[in-house]
Order: sequence, then structure tokens, then C-alpha cells
Amino acid sequence: MGLIVVKIGGGEGIDLDSVCKDAAELVHNGQQMIMVHGGNFEANQVAEQLGHPPQFVTSVSGIQSRRTDRRTLEIMEMVYAGKINKSIVEKLQSHGVNAVGLCGVDGRILEGKRKATLKIVHKGRRMVLRDDYTGTVTEINTHLLRLLLDNGYLPLLTPPAISFEHEAINVDGDRASAVIAAAMGAEQLIILANVPGLLKKFPDESTLIPHIPAAKIDDFMQYAEKRMKKKVMGASEALEAGVPKIVFGDARIENPIQQALAGRGTVIG
Amino acid sequence: MGLIVVKIGGGEGIDLDSVCKDAAELVHNGQQMIMVHGGNFEANQVAEQLGHPPQFVTSVSGIQSRRTDRRTLEIMEMVYAGKINKSIVEKLQSHGVNAVGLCGVDGRILEGKRKATLKIVHKGRRMVLRDDYTGTVTEINTHLLRLLLDNGYLPLLTPPAISFEHEAINVDGDRASAVIAAAMGAEQLIILANVPGLLKKFPDESTLIPHIPAAKIDDFMQYAEKRMKKKVMGASEALEAGVPKIVFGDARIENPIQQALAGRGTVIG
Repeated sequence: MGLIVVKIGGGEGIDLDSVCKDAAELVHNGQQMIMVHGGNFEANQVAEQLGHPPQFVTSVSGIQSRRTDRRTLEIMEMVYAGKINKSIVEKLQSHGVNAVGLCGVDGRILEGKRKATLKIVHKGRRMVLRDDYTGTVTEINTHLLRLLLDNGYLPLLTPPAISFEHEAINVDGDRASAVIAAAMGAEQLIILANVPGLLKKFPDESTLIPHIPAAKIDDFMQYAEKRMKKKVMGASEALEAGVPKIVFGDARIENPIQQALAGRGTVIG
Repeated sequence: MGLIVVKIGGGEGIDLDSVCKDAAELVHNGQQMIMVHGGNFEANQVAEQLGHPPQFVTSVSGIQSRRTDRRTLEIMEMVYAGKINKSIVEKLQSHGVNAVGLCGVDGRILEGKRKATLKIVHKGRRMVLRDDYTGTVTEINTHLLRLLLDNGYLPLLTPPAISFEHEAINVDGDRASAVIAAAMGAEQLIILANVPGLLKKFPDESTLIPHIPAAKIDDFMQYAEKRMKKKVMGASEALEAGVPKIVFGDARIENPIQQALAGRGTVIG
């Protein structure tokens, strides 16, 4: 059994208990696994509560992302690397899995280039942001991940990543998972979210696309709504980097990982 | 050069930049080090901002500690394991130290018994709390710490710990550092805080006690004010468990670790 990478979305309605229970069943059967998680929904709530409400920006190429000033990054560290990461570690530990939670800054696990400037469209006008801490992961500390896996620990990773200039940077978790899966030679990348997979007519769940051949992935970007865009980009990047199979699975059901491994959801590859 | 454990306090006025710069100088000269940090001051601020202000309780033996319901524990995870831990890792990384930040739940690094009940004195009356997540560290995952150290990583640890029943629990960072130092066979435990050391007449800094012989440590508990009580308890427990030397050093000065190693502060042992 080869390694799998499981990404858990940060949206509303994700059932972390059943994800952790399922992960534990697989691990106890000898499955090697790296988990990655997000935290958008809770980070937005906490940002509101702390008087620093989330702002989203749209890049000139039409991709929406979080505006990340230094204060937003700190809130992200609190929610992603603090509250959510440690609560998932606690759940996995309660199922007998010796999880170790790390963000990308720890041991430079997720490293990449910070965007010097962010070109956005605001109210129809192009603007340039220079104080944004955003970037893209290109380097993985495979040594540390391998060290943990080979010694019986399950790595549970989350943004932020670290820039080449040693700054914490916000990165997309789906696309980071693709880079992790490729760098670690994973057999499969399972991307779980609060939808059943890629839908032809979002949000109509009866229009689930069950299979996408690897060569056709970019044709399916047209069906991706909102945050699903990054998942399709991640899948495309994972395929290109040599990951043979990606599954978009439903995180709201029982045994979500095993179901995705069995082909439920959108199977790509 | 043997291993040292450096505890950084969580009080106001701690200069994390000079602590990290100093740690990096030592690490680059071959010093093996485990760091541990607190976060009381910031955790209290965030708890206020989130509408869950800190409460403190006094045990029947007169020791003050934080009241830790589940919500307080989550806020603690946000501030200690999220914001502060990752900001220190980022600073260490910027000085070329490959730090890995972990809380006690990760890999069960800090494990101990949760207090089934907390016996407190409230307005002169004895009361029993049953929904408090507090405990004391007794077990250290030395395997994971040794694995990281031997592979060139600097472990940066923080509460919470994990109970034998897999619940995250609040533990005292000073006393946890003593258990870590003993379990790892550290040569010295350096406890840095926003005071120059143990003062005979707190807060008069000219009354610094420069040296305490190991056999006399418990006699000096009488001089310990507020949070210094836990530091003296930690020092006493560390000595008993075989740590040969403990130093209470000033975290507000340049090169705070090297100065403590050179004997500035209160040297115990």
C-alpha cells in the first residue's frame, strides 16, 4: 500500500469526527497517510469577532483569494495552526493515531515564493497590493515528512507556508496538497470538501461528474464554482507532477476517505 | 556540550527577537537546545477580545492558576500553539535555525493526568470544579524529541499537554519544562521571564538572589510572588529529578540565554 495524501476542506459542515475515525481505521490497517487541512470558515468567524473582518480580492485572472495583511496572517495561524490543527490531532490521538500537527513554517515543510505584488481588480479597476503575505508552495521538506512517517507518526499539515525570505505566507491548501502528494510520490490525493465532488450544475448534487480522464482535466475548469476552482487547479497540477489519481470526495458522510478510495466522488486520472 | 532546555515566559515585556537571535548564535556554535514557551499575557488579551475573559482560581494550597473550561483551552491553543508558537518559529527560521513548533498534544510529547476535580477557594469558601481541563505533565515523548534533535531540528514546545484519556489539558509551562529537562537528561534548565531572577523583596530588582544551593531550594519558596511560585516549584522538581543546574534569567536583555549560562540571574544548584 502506497502513501496517500488526504486534504480536509475548511468549509462549513465538514464532519471532522468521521474523517478522523475513518483515517484511524485505515492507519490501523497499515495505510501510510499525510493529512492536510484548511480553516476558512472558522478563520472568517474569528476575524469578525476580533474586529478584523475578512476581505477577499479577485486577481486579474479572475481567481478569488483572501486578502492577507500581517494581522490576517496571525489570525490564520491562530485558527488553522492553533485551534483546528490541535483539535484534529486530539481527535486522531483519541483513535490511537499518533498525529503530529505542523504548519508549513515548521521545519520549512511548505516553502515557496511570496508574491512581491498582488494585481487585483477592485470595483472594475486594476490595483496593485504590496503588503500582502501570499504565495505559492513549490518546495516540500520531504526529509522531515519521511522521518515522521517512518517512525510511526501521522503528519497533519496546514497553511501558512514560509517564503524564501523566511516570512509566513498564506497559500492555498488544495494546491499545496498537490505539491506534497507529488513530492512524496503519493499514490492518490483525496480532496474532501462539503460537496459530493465536481458538479456540472452547481449546487445541484445530482449533476456530479463521476470521472474525468487525466488528459481532459483543464476542460472541466468551466464547471468549477468559487473555491472548487483551486481544487481543479490543484488536481491539474498534481497530475502534471506525476500523481496518478486524484479524488474529490464528500467530507460530510461516514467513512469519507474509504468511500473516496472506493471511487465515490469525482475520480480524476 | 550537553543539551539545554530554555523556557521563555509568556509575560509582558519579553523580547522575543533577542531571545531568538541569542538561541541562533548558540545553535550555530553547536549547542543542542529544546525551547518551551508560554503565552499568558496574550492569551488573556485575546480571551477578552473574544468575550471570554480569563478567570483565575486559587487552589486550597494557595496556588493561583487559570480556570480552564473547554473554550479557554481552545483560546489557549489559538494563542500558544498558533500565534506565538508560529511567530517564534518564523523568527528562528529567519536566523537560520530549523525550528519545529509543537504543542504537547502533538505526538503526545507532553502527557499527564487530568485532575478529575479541582479543589479551589472562592470568596473564602471551598468549592469543587469538575469541568476544568487542567493537569500535570509526567510523561515526555523523548523518542520524538530525540528524533528531531538528532536530525538538526530545534523543537519549540508549548502547552497544552494531553491527558491519558486523550484530552487536551492546560499545564504549567515552567513545571513541564522541568519534566522535559529531566527526561532528556539536560545539563541546564534556563527559565527566562520579565524579571531578573528571584527577588528577596519583589518587585525591588536590587534584591536579586544570585545563588540558591540545591539543598536549600524549598526554603526560598517564601520569596516567590505570584507566577514565580511555579518557577521555584519547577526548579525544585527539576533538581529532584536530576537536572544539575537551573537558572532564572532575565528575558528583557540582550543575549538573555548566554547571560543566564554565564551565571547572570538566580543560579540554582
